[in-house]
Amino acid sequence: MKMAHLITNCSFNTSPSVQTFSSSPNYCRSVGQLQNSKSSNLSLKSCSRRQKKSYVTCASAAVQGQTQTPLTGSPQAYEHSSSKPKKVMVIGGDGYCGWATALHLSNKGYEVAIVDNLVRRLFDHQLGLDSLTPITSIQNRVRRWKSLTGKTIQLFIGDICDFEFLSEAFKSFEPDAAVHFGEQRSAPYSMIDRSRAVYTQHNNVIGTLNVLFAMKEYSEECHLVKLGTMGEYGTPNIDIEEGFITVTHNGRTDILPYPKQASSFYHLSKVHDSHNIAFTCKAWGIRATDLNQGVVYGVRTDETAMHEELSNRFDYDGVFGTALNRFCVQAAVGHPLTVYGKGGQTRGYLDIRDTVQCVELAIANPAKPGEFRVFNQFTEQFSVNELAKLVTAAGAKLGLEVQDQIGAQPTSRG
Amino acid sequence: MKMAHLITNCSFNTSPSVQTFSSSPNYCRSVGQLQNSKSSNLSLKSCSRRQKKSYVTCASAAVQGQTQTPLTGSPQAYEHSSSKPKKVMVIGGDGYCGWATALHLSNKGYEVAIVDNLVRRLFDHQLGLDSLTPITSIQNRVRRWKSLTGKTIQLFIGDICDFEFLSEAFKSFEPDAAVHFGEQRSAPYSMIDRSRAVYTQHNNVIGTLNVLFAMKEYSEECHLVKLGTMGEYGTPNIDIEEGFITVTHNGRTDILPYPKQASSFYHLSKVHDSHNIAFTCKAWGIRATDLNQGVVYGVRTDETAMHEELSNRFDYDGVFGTALNRFCVQAAVGHPLTVYGKGGQTRGYLDIRDTVQCVELAIANPAKPGEFRVFNQFTEQFSVNELAKLVTAAGAKLGLEVQDQIGAQPTSRG
Repeated sequence: MKMAHLITNCSFNTSPSVQTFSSSPNYCRSVGQLQNSKSSNLSLKSCSRRQKKSYVTCASAAVQGQTQTPLTGSPQAYEHSSSKPKKVMVIGGDGYCGWATALHLSNKGYEVAIVDNLVRRLFDHQLGLDSLTPITSIQNRVRRWKSLTGKTIQLFIGDICDFEFLSEAFKSFEPDAAVHFGEQRSAPYSMIDRSRAVYTQHNNVIGTLNVLFAMKEYSEECHLVKLGTMGEYGTPNIDIEEGFITVTHNGRTDILPYPKQASSFYHLSKVHDSHNIAFTCKAWGIRATDLNQGVVYGVRTDETAMHEELSNRFDYDGVFGTALNRFCVQAAVGHPLTVYGKGGQTRGYLDIRDTVQCVELAIANPAKPGEFRVFNQFTEQFSVNELAKLVTAAGAKLGLEVQDQIGAQPTSRG
Repeated sequence: MKMAHLITNCSFNTSPSVQTFSSSPNYCRSVGQLQNSKSSNLSLKSCSRRQKKSYVTCASAAVQGQTQTPLTGSPQAYEHSSSKPKKVMVIGGDGYCGWATALHLSNKGYEVAIVDNLVRRLFDHQLGLDSLTPITSIQNRVRRWKSLTGKTIQLFIGDICDFEFLSEAFKSFEPDAAVHFGEQRSAPYSMIDRSRAVYTQHNNVIGTLNVLFAMKEYSEECHLVKLGTMGEYGTPNIDIEEGFITVTHNGRTDILPYPKQASSFYHLSKVHDSHNIAFTCKAWGIRATDLNQGVVYGVRTDETAMHEELSNRFDYDGVFGTALNRFCVQAAVGHPLTVYGKGGQTRGYLDIRDTVQCVELAIANPAKPGEFRVFNQFTEQFSVNELAKLVTAAGAKLGLEVQDQIGAQPTSRG
């Protein structure tokens, strides 16, 4: 509770009802500093070219011979400007990335509907976890957004695995684009036990199948923007390309799906999704963009910072919290940073403000009918050790004595 | 009914209760001739090297650098000979391939248990279909086998998607190997509508996940022999290898999973299975063999031919029947052969007598702990047009005037 107050007050100074915990009032600026160093100069055509000593590398352009519809244009160019606003359904719009995206799109003039069964909130209850930042109900969130901006976000509360519900949402809202964040998104959660592994694959694979069938039935022109993950690729010993790779073998050449080597039931569910989506693009002419994003960090976007009732969730636990989030909280409370294993595991990262822009850019520049586009999106790469060092340095500037890497414990959750 | 009698009598002369239909008493020998031309000289280390003008080609050995435990030995060498019989659980043992395999293994001295929820029989009821050959209940089948050979096949009737049931079966039987045929296996069925697409992926993916968890929990040493399909690979413009391919890209080289391009929700479900199994081999040390077999044909094995109550099913409908089976029945009744599209679609084929040997060979030579082996298995390749010609020629020998390819209709079912 102490910890919750500490970080809450650091992050959200707008709330008059929250008490300040005095020992490190500005702690969360360290997270803010990480954010601010990156987010404004993002190139979304592809990820940045910063190469580190890691297995993960990144294509700078479409695969040779591939004709993916590019994501081009400045933020000005892709701001929505036609007379009739584009309608975007944000599936999973109550979650961490989904909520920020829904607000961003609404702010940019898109007509937005959120589809969510709110099960992410149930996971917190079941596992005894909670967001460090206090988040209010989806109904209050949407009401507050309306009162602040005059903009309406429609709500469809239900499960996309229930096709009757999903059909009604599609028929009622008639989306031009569907952004699909509506999946169980934690690798550790999917590895807790059999029932969570099965839940993850059932929920994610069947939910996505239902979305594809709903698009085929009710919104043929609708553009699917699906959130994948860089983790689908695993850590091969060759450069990672964007979804496809040109292979020459025994004298013949073809452009083939990039081989996938996922390492959790969650990551595997995203691999299955990608295969299913690719097939429906070919078979039915579905237009789809698969955004393989790295690990997303940060809590604030222009919109979520407008009012405490719009604040985004901040997970710092071992199931839904990323290593970076955990380190920040550990640094703040004086707990040694828990670097698991050797700390060499390197991943791509991006700020949540980049996530929302990436999604908007994809919506503004849709895939062609029948096209399955894949973009890899991250702006920086860090090993777990490098994250620990960044957090230690940021803590030092704030007068915190961060205990680095003392609590190393072997675990399968990374 | 006429047609059923016709083919039944051709196939199964042992039944005194079935009436002969005189116009083509020996028709099914044409199928038998196809069978006999191949089955005895099978090389199971890999598929045969006969190359035809097709996209599907076949590896003659393990991928360079790969150290798959080979399938070697003559039938004599791999016949079971230890004092304690190896216990094999045949999941889906009431189906077309599963039944023949269960009998073959029982005949060879393995201790066999069949696990099946009999849903394949329900599909027939629901779609108004039936096997051309009369098949008796699984209980009668197993009783007849016992009375003829003295060998017991245990029965576990239930759904592998029900983990409680599956756990009890594993704990009770304690298998050394689990042969997994227990999947919805028709591409056209998976493409009928949304609910069958979802059923297929749920049933196949979750069923296989449950088998993997059961092995981890209750039978750590158990060897999984999983039936995949050549259709997982699609039709790339490079040679198809066995599960893995060596890729050199931008100066680095890795052995990666062979890219998959399945073209039905059924085939996709097998792709998902393969990814899930590969992960559990790496993460948990599961030992698994993925047999990507071509289209299986033929109804008779040494065991199913022993008594009419042991007879295998023969599907000739548009959902579960293969093109070859449909052509045979069409030829017999004087219906034009329905060649869909241009008839150029080429696939690998193997006799069901080869299927049962392939499975036995895999069981006799198990994968190592943590090893994910993939073998592609077919003995011949034919285009649809070539099948039609073979059936026409075989019919002519029997005095049938086969009408070739008149009924061509465009369809997505192939």
